[in-house]
Amino acid sequence: MLFSQLVYRIAARTPRNCLSSRRWILSHRRYGHQPTFRNSNENKKHLDPFSLVGDELSLISMRLRSMVVAEVPELASAAGYFFKEGVEGKKLCPTVILLMATALNVCTPELSPNVLGNTLILDLRRRQQCIAEITEMIHVASLIHDDVLDDADTRRGIGSLSSVMGNKLAILAGDLLISRALVALASLKHTEVVSLMATALKNLVSGETMQMTATFEQRCSMECYMQKTYNKTAALVSNSCKAVAYLSGQREEVATLAFEYGRNLGLAYQLIDDILDFTGTSASLGKASLTDLRNGIITAPILFAMEEFPQLHAFINSSSDNPANVDVILEYLGKSHGIQRTTELAVKHASLAAAAIDSLPETHDVDATNARTALVHITQKIITRNK
Amino acid sequence: MLFSQLVYRIAARTPRNCLSSRRWILSHRRYGHQPTFRNSNENKKHLDPFSLVGDELSLISMRLRSMVVAEVPELASAAGYFFKEGVEGKKLCPTVILLMATALNVCTPELSPNVLGNTLILDLRRRQQCIAEITEMIHVASLIHDDVLDDADTRRGIGSLSSVMGNKLAILAGDLLISRALVALASLKHTEVVSLMATALKNLVSGETMQMTATFEQRCSMECYMQKTYNKTAALVSNSCKAVAYLSGQREEVATLAFEYGRNLGLAYQLIDDILDFTGTSASLGKASLTDLRNGIITAPILFAMEEFPQLHAFINSSSDNPANVDVILEYLGKSHGIQRTTELAVKHASLAAAAIDSLPETHDVDATNARTALVHITQKIITRNK
Repeated sequence: MLFSQLVYRIAARTPRNCLSSRRWILSHRRYGHQPTFRNSNENKKHLDPFSLVGDELSLISMRLRSMVVAEVPELASAAGYFFKEGVEGKKLCPTVILLMATALNVCTPELSPNVLGNTLILDLRRRQQCIAEITEMIHVASLIHDDVLDDADTRRGIGSLSSVMGNKLAILAGDLLISRALVALASLKHTEVVSLMATALKNLVSGETMQMTATFEQRCSMECYMQKTYNKTAALVSNSCKAVAYLSGQREEVATLAFEYGRNLGLAYQLIDDILDFTGTSASLGKASLTDLRNGIITAPILFAMEEFPQLHAFINSSSDNPANVDVILEYLGKSHGIQRTTELAVKHASLAAAAIDSLPETHDVDATNARTALVHITQKIITRNK
Repeated sequence: MLFSQLVYRIAARTPRNCLSSRRWILSHRRYGHQPTFRNSNENKKHLDPFSLVGDELSLISMRLRSMVVAEVPELASAAGYFFKEGVEGKKLCPTVILLMATALNVCTPELSPNVLGNTLILDLRRRQQCIAEITEMIHVASLIHDDVLDDADTRRGIGSLSSVMGNKLAILAGDLLISRALVALASLKHTEVVSLMATALKNLVSGETMQMTATFEQRCSMECYMQKTYNKTAALVSNSCKAVAYLSGQREEVATLAFEYGRNLGLAYQLIDDILDFTGTSASLGKASLTDLRNGIITAPILFAMEEFPQLHAFINSSSDNPANVDVILEYLGKSHGIQRTTELAVKHASLAAAAIDSLPETHDVDATNARTALVHITQKIITRNK
């Protein structure tokens, strides 16, 4: 069974009640329910997406850390903070890029190992790693500046760089990473790749701009929300997936599938993030940080709830940091299908991401097959995660 | 007489006393003494560097303003603030780039008007204007972020963007400009030009990093000072001059002359800026803002003075914002040749910039000749400016 069919089946079986739908997903995660993959069980441990490219991830982290420390020794702790191995939740983007590179490398006749020498193969892989590094630099730079813009106190559960080291060093660190990303990008000497990564950076800034400057009407629009979500979360991974496809010499249709995988994966990831802002790990509303709600950022669960209960507008429009307001909003959200519909939307995008992988040109190469299985696995992991 | 010879003669005639050397330069400016140029007097008004490319400068300002306002209406006042026509001191970089483009366009056989159609000529000019726009975007972005980093209250005599609109909008505006500059750069589809502008941005951030994190020993080193000055002031104009040369299809030696013009002009400009921080418009020490001194930034006049009076180290090392300390430092500076030697160094770099123009391949094209005369004129203007 294709994974895309499987996740559609999950969506179809999802109960209508928002809380139980969340619990349903969590219980399947807790009790180890895993969708059946095309590969046999004995291969499973080798197909863990992160361990498949673990050595390269370590190498990339080390390179980025060394670069920052060599440039600005004062940023050593910041570099360790962001590019340290094993810190939860930050390896997804480079992991996806490296897996996509493996998934695509063998599909073009002109790049088959028979034609390419080892040096050329290594050079191609080095260039694709470079995309992963550039993406990490842009990603971390945007996180650092966003934390300053949002006055964030924490990031990934620990103090944000701006709160720990001050806004000045945070701005400088962000600028440093962007400028080094641009130098690395220029070194690839590939005009289409430069365009893709430039677009990704533009989208990131546009996303933050939309969040900072949107009118109440725009904040209540699902279309604006999806556009902002694409800009802030999906544009970087989608464009970098397409970039590795270009570097592999893939034709446009294959590059577009790589882009679609990244786009849908990014959207699904953020939709689940928005649910977790309400439920946290407990699957109970209001047990999590409610960071977005308290900052007046309206996300998918509330947008869906507002469709059912238009009276929610009034509470959202007034100060949403008021505890009484928060309680009312959560009460409406609990009565609505907001969490459930957001979950369904996330599952839909995860399945579209998996479908893009299913649509890649057939391969009999073991590494490429494993990488594709791992990419599909990631679409399931992000749906069932609880942090 | 070549301008490069003339400015060397100025340097040779400069009196040894630091204050009178400054007065000497100012009096020549005040009483209208102008070096003799290769062109006749009746051409002078047409050779005013700013009016030669005035229409294009207006067009570039308008394009940048519209782009920012279209993206973020909230930044309309910021866009007006930075990209408004006629505000003192901010048109130098795009002026130099456009003049360099004219100065170089006719010197390559394969790009002569006989071979190129009008469309191709217009397309080349549009691409060169794009370099001027990209440079302005990067320049303004770095000014905005530097103001946040330096806690600057004013910029060009009026409130800095960060003090007027808050740090958050300032960070966002800077990020927006950098991301749009990168998109514009990608649109040129020229890998060497991408590399040059990436290097320029890297240098700008490195310059600010050096300023923020240098040890006292590094701050007392002339070598570090010149490197920081190149990074912060000269790298952008030098690399963009080289970029327009590449776009014109010039050979490497000509592109290097364009680079050397920008590098030396930028260094001369900053050295005079550093003098003006002490003298302002009055030619008297201590009558200006003393911004650098009060912020602990050690510039060329003090570095030269410290060579003569090593005891200055102690006063510089302790809080230089202490009024008593400031008085002592100014007293030593007045007794030293610090201002004079800085002036001589600025004049030397201005003359090297002029010499680079003199060394360009000969041309009989009137526009190219006028543009070259204007570029040389700029080297003299920046030496004799008092604001």
